[in-house]
Amino acid sequence: MEKRPYEFELERINALIKERGARRVGLQLPEGLKTVAIEIAAEISTETGVDVILSGSSCYGACDVDEKLARTVDILLHFGHSENTFRKHFLSKERTCAKKEYNSFGNAFLSKKRFVLEENYQEKVVFIELRSTVDIKPVVESAVAELTGDCAGLVATVQHVHALNEAKIVLTRSGKKVIIGKSSNVTYDGQVLGCEFSSALVPCDEILFIGSGSFHPAGLARYTGKRVIAADPFTMQISIFEPETMRKKRYGVIARARDAKSFGIIVGMKSGQFNLSEALALKRKAIAKGLAAHLIAMDEITEASLLGFKVDAFVNTACPRLAEDYVHFNKPVLSVNEFEVVIGERGWEGIWP
Amino acid sequence: MEKRPYEFELERINALIKERGARRVGLQLPEGLKTVAIEIAAEISTETGVDVILSGSSCYGACDVDEKLARTVDILLHFGHSENTFRKHFLSKERTCAKKEYNSFGNAFLSKKRFVLEENYQEKVVFIELRSTVDIKPVVESAVAELTGDCAGLVATVQHVHALNEAKIVLTRSGKKVIIGKSSNVTYDGQVLGCEFSSALVPCDEILFIGSGSFHPAGLARYTGKRVIAADPFTMQISIFEPETMRKKRYGVIARARDAKSFGIIVGMKSGQFNLSEALALKRKAIAKGLAAHLIAMDEITEASLLGFKVDAFVNTACPRLAEDYVHFNKPVLSVNEFEVVIGERGWEGIWP
Repeated sequence: MEKRPYEFELERINALIKERGARRVGLQLPEGLKTVAIEIAAEISTETGVDVILSGSSCYGACDVDEKLARTVDILLHFGHSENTFRKHFLSKERTCAKKEYNSFGNAFLSKKRFVLEENYQEKVVFIELRSTVDIKPVVESAVAELTGDCAGLVATVQHVHALNEAKIVLTRSGKKVIIGKSSNVTYDGQVLGCEFSSALVPCDEILFIGSGSFHPAGLARYTGKRVIAADPFTMQISIFEPETMRKKRYGVIARARDAKSFGIIVGMKSGQFNLSEALALKRKAIAKGLAAHLIAMDEITEASLLGFKVDAFVNTACPRLAEDYVHFNKPVLSVNEFEVVIGERGWEGIWP
Repeated sequence: MEKRPYEFELERINALIKERGARRVGLQLPEGLKTVAIEIAAEISTETGVDVILSGSSCYGACDVDEKLARTVDILLHFGHSENTFRKHFLSKERTCAKKEYNSFGNAFLSKKRFVLEENYQEKVVFIELRSTVDIKPVVESAVAELTGDCAGLVATVQHVHALNEAKIVLTRSGKKVIIGKSSNVTYDGQVLGCEFSSALVPCDEILFIGSGSFHPAGLARYTGKRVIAADPFTMQISIFEPETMRKKRYGVIARARDAKSFGIIVGMKSGQFNLSEALALKRKAIAKGLAAHLIAMDEITEASLLGFKVDAFVNTACPRLAEDYVHFNKPVLSVNEFEVVIGERGWEGIWP
């Protein structure tokens, strides 16, 4: 078997299965890794004799645990994401604390008032972070030429955070100043999530992101307002993300929502995205302004799932990134902050930090 | 407000909400009726003062209750489907009974061993059948010309079953013999579901179906092996479904699966479609034949959700109709019976009654 680009920690997993005496084990992999799911399932099953059940549902983050599968198995192995700090807050029983914490988008993502739908499956979920086994130094060496300033904020997805110090050494040798930011909202220094970029809030003019795809760097550019250089250690590709390009799209959507008279307030039903109390508060705000507002609960927010609902615009209280970059929606789909701009409760300048 | 084509029973609903002292009410409507969801929500909300939450997820039948929403609200109104008899069996606590009952497809749909994932939300679900307010006599009069034999089995979806006797009068006056079949698996005489056609098993050469769309009549033709005349009271359209056309498609899929060495056994995670014990049994059968088999759990079975899994073919233990008519899959997706033909445990002639 050829070397895998990620460390699946199968030895640790097999030991854990045997230790807990599990009979049924669920596996949940992010979209990009579903192609190795059958192979991993076969290895675990052969080694431990358990029945493995693969999750065939989408999986976009630690906020997106397959709850139904978790309830069906003895252990659910959730690959590719680190256990988020919100979940820790929640499990530490600070639920009644009214203090809100705000994530990068000013949404109450890390608020202790946000809660998961159910608790009884949570102890079964084991997060396997999938550390990359690929050397990041070569792509960082290539990225140096694209850095225009003297100082760069250095960030990565969880698969590469363990190698950020190696990247820092490469950059320092090239004469660059590097800052790996800290944040209490993520597990590791310099780590970014799709909805949480505060470790990129460092006093540098640009950001070097280590990871794959454009989802994270696009969000980084819009959130920080800084130029982002994205370096992919797997493809060796370097891409540039300009903040104004990212932000303009959202200004356009906000402008289109200004004439809306009726809103669909989306309640995300994925456990880590559920925030009914915020959705109810937004509904009451809309009604107080003389607008119509209706709550709509859904797991997957797609154009097809919104199509039938006869409202002028939507507000998304689920994953703050859902509507922003990739999914095309015909009607405006606003974030919570953007909705507050539309109803006159927040200025344009207050959408992002 | 113009007259609705269905009876939404809003007076009964509003009375029920007040009687139960509900504060939050969920509404779940089938795909075709999502366009009136906002209007219905507004009416209920205005009349009772409750917070209404609409389900934005797909809804294909009484087997497809939005569980997460049910747990979030005090009452979940599930529109357009009748409470199925399986659910009644289940609630009558006959769960330990080992006797299996087979649905139209020979699958254990009504088996008492099939169970829902959770019980704690079930008392909250209220089924509203949505009886049609449209006169079915005109379309039945049109359909007479298409009936080639002297005797027709008369069936309808739950929206029209209350009018089957009127249809029978029209047909009898035209000199036709009509049989409205009975089945213990459905609520009403002559009723058909997408997965349950046994009330069409009557000694006639053809079937007259009253309802919309081609999902039910296509299944009726394949299952009964008889010519089906579909009469839509809303559009006044008459369509003919020939059994051989419907069956040939499935023979083709079975033939393509004969060389498969590895199978993905799909476990449906919608509560009324969940049957892990059957999926596990099929996995063991496959392995005993020297084939590889992997369990894959999912809510929505789509080409995209199967795409990443590296197996040669799939077996569907969820809704038996899912793979048959409408959804295009690149790899073969077999029903349980069809899989048993492929592994040599059942003859071709045993796929349908």
